[in-house]
Amino acid sequence: MTSYFSHIAPIRYQGPATDEALAFRHYDKDRVVLGKTMAEHLRFAVCYWHSFCWNGLDPFGGGTFERPWFQGGSPMELARQKADTAFEFFEKLGAPYYCFHDRDVAPEGATPKESHENLLRLVDVLGEHQQRTGMKLLWGTANLFSHRRFMAGAATNPDPELFGLAALQVRDAMDATMRLGGENYVLWGGREGYETLLNTDMGRELDQMGRFLNMVVEYKHRKGFKGTILLEPKPREPSKHQYDFDSATVYGFLTRYGLEKEVKVNIEANHATLSGHSFEHEIATAAALGILGSIDMNRGDPQLGWDTDQFPNNVPELALAIYHILQAGGLGSGGFNFDAKVRRQSIDAEDLFHGHIGGMDVCARALLVAEQMIVDGRLAAHVSQRYAGWDTPAAREILDGRVSLDQLADRVLARNTDVAPRSGRQEYLENLVNRFAG
Amino acid sequence: MTSYFSHIAPIRYQGPATDEALAFRHYDKDRVVLGKTMAEHLRFAVCYWHSFCWNGLDPFGGGTFERPWFQGGSPMELARQKADTAFEFFEKLGAPYYCFHDRDVAPEGATPKESHENLLRLVDVLGEHQQRTGMKLLWGTANLFSHRRFMAGAATNPDPELFGLAALQVRDAMDATMRLGGENYVLWGGREGYETLLNTDMGRELDQMGRFLNMVVEYKHRKGFKGTILLEPKPREPSKHQYDFDSATVYGFLTRYGLEKEVKVNIEANHATLSGHSFEHEIATAAALGILGSIDMNRGDPQLGWDTDQFPNNVPELALAIYHILQAGGLGSGGFNFDAKVRRQSIDAEDLFHGHIGGMDVCARALLVAEQMIVDGRLAAHVSQRYAGWDTPAAREILDGRVSLDQLADRVLARNTDVAPRSGRQEYLENLVNRFAG
Amino acid sequence: MTSYFSHIAPIRYQGPATDEALAFRHYDKDRVVLGKTMAEHLRFAVCYWHSFCWNGLDPFGGGTFERPWFQGGSPMELARQKADTAFEFFEKLGAPYYCFHDRDVAPEGATPKESHENLLRLVDVLGEHQQRTGMKLLWGTANLFSHRRFMAGAATNPDPELFGLAALQVRDAMDATMRLGGENYVLWGGREGYETLLNTDMGRELDQMGRFLNMVVEYKHRKGFKGTILLEPKPREPSKHQYDFDSATVYGFLTRYGLEKEVKVNIEANHATLSGHSFEHEIATAAALGILGSIDMNRGDPQLGWDTDQFPNNVPELALAIYHILQAGGLGSGGFNFDAKVRRQSIDAEDLFHGHIGGMDVCARALLVAEQMIVDGRLAAHVSQRYAGWDTPAAREILDGRVSLDQLADRVLARNTDVAPRSGRQEYLENLVNRFAG
Amino acid sequence: MTSYFSHIAPIRYQGPATDEALAFRHYDKDRVVLGKTMAEHLRFAVCYWHSFCWNGLDPFGGGTFERPWFQGGSPMELARQKADTAFEFFEKLGAPYYCFHDRDVAPEGATPKESHENLLRLVDVLGEHQQRTGMKLLWGTANLFSHRRFMAGAATNPDPELFGLAALQVRDAMDATMRLGGENYVLWGGREGYETLLNTDMGRELDQMGRFLNMVVEYKHRKGFKGTILLEPKPREPSKHQYDFDSATVYGFLTRYGLEKEVKVNIEANHATLSGHSFEHEIATAAALGILGSIDMNRGDPQLGWDTDQFPNNVPELALAIYHILQAGGLGSGGFNFDAKVRRQSIDAEDLFHGHIGGMDVCARALLVAEQMIVDGRLAAHVSQRYAGWDTPAAREILDGRVSLDQLADRVLARNTDVAPRSGRQEYLENLVNRFAG
Repeated sequence: MTSYFSHIAPIRYQGPATDEALAFRHYDKDRVVLGKTMAEHLRFAVCYWHSFCWNGLDPFGGGTFERPWFQGGSPMELARQKADTAFEFFEKLGAPYYCFHDRDVAPEGATPKESHENLLRLVDVLGEHQQRTGMKLLWGTANLFSHRRFMAGAATNPDPELFGLAALQVRDAMDATMRLGGENYVLWGGREGYETLLNTDMGRELDQMGRFLNMVVEYKHRKGFKGTILLEPKPREPSKHQYDFDSATVYGFLTRYGLEKEVKVNIEANHATLSGHSFEHEIATAAALGILGSIDMNRGDPQLGWDTDQFPNNVPELALAIYHILQAGGLGSGGFNFDAKVRRQSIDAEDLFHGHIGGMDVCARALLVAEQMIVDGRLAAHVSQRYAGWDTPAAREILDGRVSLDQLADRVLARNTDVAPRSGRQEYLENLVNRFAG
Repeated sequence: MTSYFSHIAPIRYQGPATDEALAFRHYDKDRVVLGKTMAEHLRFAVCYWHSFCWNGLDPFGGGTFERPWFQGGSPMELARQKADTAFEFFEKLGAPYYCFHDRDVAPEGATPKESHENLLRLVDVLGEHQQRTGMKLLWGTANLFSHRRFMAGAATNPDPELFGLAALQVRDAMDATMRLGGENYVLWGGREGYETLLNTDMGRELDQMGRFLNMVVEYKHRKGFKGTILLEPKPREPSKHQYDFDSATVYGFLTRYGLEKEVKVNIEANHATLSGHSFEHEIATAAALGILGSIDMNRGDPQLGWDTDQFPNNVPELALAIYHILQAGGLGSGGFNFDAKVRRQSIDAEDLFHGHIGGMDVCARALLVAEQMIVDGRLAAHVSQRYAGWDTPAAREILDGRVSLDQLADRVLARNTDVAPRSGRQEYLENLVNRFAG
Repeated sequence: MTSYFSHIAPIRYQGPATDEALAFRHYDKDRVVLGKTMAEHLRFAVCYWHSFCWNGLDPFGGGTFERPWFQGGSPMELARQKADTAFEFFEKLGAPYYCFHDRDVAPEGATPKESHENLLRLVDVLGEHQQRTGMKLLWGTANLFSHRRFMAGAATNPDPELFGLAALQVRDAMDATMRLGGENYVLWGGREGYETLLNTDMGRELDQMGRFLNMVVEYKHRKGFKGTILLEPKPREPSKHQYDFDSATVYGFLTRYGLEKEVKVNIEANHATLSGHSFEHEIATAAALGILGSIDMNRGDPQLGWDTDQFPNNVPELALAIYHILQAGGLGSGGFNFDAKVRRQSIDAEDLFHGHIGGMDVCARALLVAEQMIVDGRLAAHVSQRYAGWDTPAAREILDGRVSLDQLADRVLARNTDVAPRSGRQEYLENLVNRFAG
Repeated sequence: MTSYFSHIAPIRYQGPATDEALAFRHYDKDRVVLGKTMAEHLRFAVCYWHSFCWNGLDPFGGGTFERPWFQGGSPMELARQKADTAFEFFEKLGAPYYCFHDRDVAPEGATPKESHENLLRLVDVLGEHQQRTGMKLLWGTANLFSHRRFMAGAATNPDPELFGLAALQVRDAMDATMRLGGENYVLWGGREGYETLLNTDMGRELDQMGRFLNMVVEYKHRKGFKGTILLEPKPREPSKHQYDFDSATVYGFLTRYGLEKEVKVNIEANHATLSGHSFEHEIATAAALGILGSIDMNRGDPQLGWDTDQFPNNVPELALAIYHILQAGGLGSGGFNFDAKVRRQSIDAEDLFHGHIGGMDVCARALLVAEQMIVDGRLAAHVSQRYAGWDTPAAREILDGRVSLDQLADRVLARNTDVAPRSGRQEYLENLVNRFAG
């Protein structure tokens, strides 16, 4: 019996000049960049859901992908077949990590217990595949948004019974993540928000969500899990408003519930742009607030108002994002998870490879650009020099709280001179970036 | 000599049926609504800048308004003429409050000292007008965004000298506010953000802004000012990104710098929509986070991506906003400041009245709708009942932290039953609102 | 055996004061407004797809509605059950019209012929229901976007075989529409556009679409169909770009292919706002260009970038839209089709009624407001007076082409005087609208 | 006396490796690309307004640029000084073309006649500079949007007197363009639209605009002007809605007034994105409709809802745009006009050079990428093959109108087979582009 990808050879690095479409042109996993290999910097992960669970459906049309594991067997048999095929893909692609939701890998059962047991069984299957292939789990998560029971939220549901069902799923997904050596655990609250304020008590819902996250953190510590707990911001979709709107909002939420030292953010490029920010803005914000955790790598479409989850393809844009990640010291236990899907019309097995190869190559090329920006050093030096005035003792005194408003005002009034502004040099700096990225 | 508004009689309440355009149809200041007069609920303020300083200029064209106080005298003479005219307008309109920036009322001088002294002199003029008319100051603020010296920010400027000049202006504007009996003090940071991350150190800038705000709060307490310090969120414009993006972001900023009990937000309708939220969302969020302070009343245009600052004109929308304010217990020392301007083509003196009369009438009508919603009680009851499950002892135990994640998970697993979702009843609730608003 | 809506009594007009939620408060079908009954003005239609075919699925979650006709029988049996239930709903609601896609009413068969025959059979069923109930068909249409075969378009497909399959469906849907006495025929091209220009030849696709529409118009005339052919503009979604972007774009397309006298537009409120226009803009544009045909009544969410298809609920907004329709002389053979769906959480049978009742009442109330605006006459008079200068002989001469650019320029130069602008009076006019709508 | 740019040496091509910031790294004007020099392909123009007239003002702050020609002399002296400085800049930069509005180069006078004469005098000055330097005029235009008299439009003004004043300005600006050997004439209607439909008669205004444009075309022919008349689409800003919304809308307008063979579009990148399209979409649309004329080169900010007019800096994006221009056969008499401005904080003389050098280099680099895409040929071949079915006789018969809807439907029904869709290969094609652009 032939496998779904049996006609495709493992993907290898062949250099920029290769004419082979199913090869890497830039991602050379062992190439050393700023003291670490590309693989160590980028820690690529393939997500289970978009490539192995989604059937191409959109709000105006049914599935377009006809995968062998979508029908023709019992749910558990199909789940095993899906796992086999997914690992065939992972191995041939050569990304070191993968990510999953509980319901991606194991089917919902007729009862909570059956779902619980289905997951346990599939975790064994995944564990064997990991053992065999060396693949690792970047993070696990629980799907608390697809089933109709969660239509009004999970932790933020008006009904505490659903909070309980969510707790079961998260506990089990955390256990699965730990058993599989996962390096992080993610929570994305697609239904943790509201459709209309008319039926919503936002204060209650935030308190519920704060309590839920505290329970997760307590459990992590009790079990000795060393991975990072990550919240994934998204402003809206599916809900009209989601409470984890963006990194700055998540920071406020974490401080409100005492968790800003415990939880970080998993920033998705497309979620960033949907929230009215650039991707690098979200990275720089999370870095400034000390909560930069991991990346969901994809791109949105600047003309479309929903999550398109396309593979990234713009090197100069991505170079800025990676530059900010490197300046922040990297992602620690995080990585680059391709939360990206081939277009609905890309119905062939090869298309899954084209999408991921393109994405990995763009990231690798962007990493090389960012390396040049850092080695060159002019960008960082320009910023330091711009703020150099704040490193003087007089300015430090202000920041340290040793000068009051009216003391400072009186000093300025006594000196009685205006201050000339200096050019922000934006065009010069953009050209400097294009020296490496253009 | 005739005044600018001498041909316009004071505006009076004449009831819904009046055919007079220069009269209130709904705003009947002494009418009692839920135990307070309309005037006490709404605490309307007229802003100085849009109606008396702006000349109709936009990015593609010059001024269209030819006001007598725009030319033909020395800056200080014109400032006095502007003050006289503004108070003529305030008095004829019959809104009890006004608001200003330092530079709205007094011209920038050739030196910091001259600016300082110009403000002192004009504060005397304003004080006399207040005395004479009974007008009150809702809040004062400092303009730290129009002068070229602040092009790269005030508190967040890379140059500490500009932080100093900003401190002088804010100290003086706070002093002016206190002298005039102002009930709040506002900071809006139109340049406290960035144009490009390439020349920006966000961490430094946030720390500078945090320190500045702490200095303001310390000064307030030292001077015994009883008013509220308010930050006004806006996501962008003029800057590409502003740090006070929205209420949730401001909340995170306040907690980071220890100020969440000291500072509240002044929410502007148009700023809300520019940040990707509804106006009522921003109100409900600020209320849930305990930082709801005051309102800048206006509307944006849903098709335009910039701050249009139009007068509000949609009663059903505004009724929801006012409903949330009432549910939150009202605005305390805050009020409704019309941060709204007549369109650039509305060049006549009458147009200033039409804009404000329409805005006040829409708010008054919306207050009456909100009153009905509250008196009816079904909306609030529906929300309470929806969350009633959380008021049981078992649910309280979860929220109070007495149940761990796996305890709860195990209980749910043992019970092993699914939970049926209940209708969110959105259409029913929207119809219920339209019973009062439609 | 009880029917799905057996617990719900027919909806009746009970007046604004009624406490009954399942009653009309404003829609009094026989009330005469400007010489026609409300029913004649509004010609309400219920759409088949949202209320009887959609199961509550969204891009992040599965179905939430558990309707009896979704499972438990053969596709044809379920289609009959669905038709019975739909007509029970139509009758109880009291809207005079309905609308459908071919695939809404009859299941896709295993072959084109089977699909063709399924539709024929169901048309008989619908015909009997129409006979029995007096319900009428506002328009029919063909679904050329849900099946995977049309993933790259129907008329604009790169493969002419798909154009052929689309022709079959449209021919059959037109035949069905004619047999059922439909008053219009609609084409919406959700996949007539592109996902990426990289694989698209726009010139070819426009020519294909132009040819297809000409074939439809020729067929209409040959068969003697008296109804209007309507294109429904939408800018994007599901495609990245759709060729029928908005009314102005459709007008250009129609002129390019010689069809501007043959085809009109079916304007959807939510499609209007997605294209960057207000609903009334699209109506006024289509009216000015002579292609205003019919309305898909719903609303979008100003914060969401996709088609939310909510029921309308804002009377002042809708009053402006209806005002423009009335000013344009009404919709002729068109009507108000509720292309609107209850929210995914509104899972009960009652919710379908609440959505439609609210929508119909809001339209009825808006019609009454528009009536007042027209009877009052000041709005229209203001516009006429504003352009009165163009009615002078000298101005007519310019418009009629009897003055050349340099003749006019020389006259103006000879006169050598500037012209003072006049106030646009926007705030006054907005207040005037609120006199009726507020 | 030293000139404003005397400290800056002429900009030369120095190759990608140069360390000099004030040099071209990619724009090598004589380098041959696909049979023409870079200069011939790109036909760069510098615009007068952003670099020499704008003072850095934005809606929230005053000017930041302190140019010597902004004050200290009579308006005509300053205009001459501005012209001298502009040509010093043009010459040092080495772009072959420039563009201007009448009011950019000559001050508004106290009367129409004085304005007319001011322009005549400055045209002499410009002519001498052209003679001396070899600079050429890409296009001229008239500013019909900045003066308050045009606040309600020029050609679309409710007052025909304003139409007349606009005609004078356009006639004079066309004459100036012809005298200076301009290769095109542009009309951008920033106020040709509306602020509110409440005071607008759209049908009248479109007719006025159609008549105005016909007068322009008649004049062009009478004077024997060989250049192209160009309309510049923009969806909104400064008006709420502008009639020349995008290329497809302009096409419809042109056909309505019989001008689709006479007038083309000048597409601006930032206007494209403000209208909800990609830049390459607008180019491909105009090409498909036969109205592609010229380019206003700049970029917007995807997070900002207004015209930011930044210099382009993203090579992969621009490569797609230039690829579509080349595929359409180039721009003819059009060119690439930098309708771009340095940021308000870029206050130094050097910044004007950095902006333009970066923009020219990005375009040159993108041209080289597009050249590779074309030489490679796989992209174009992929598209041809995708539509190859339409080149068969059977398919041609359909397109040529020799098959009716029911003939085709009957054939398809008789054949009775479904058609399998084929992969759209989007990811493969995006990777192919990145082979050249990444």
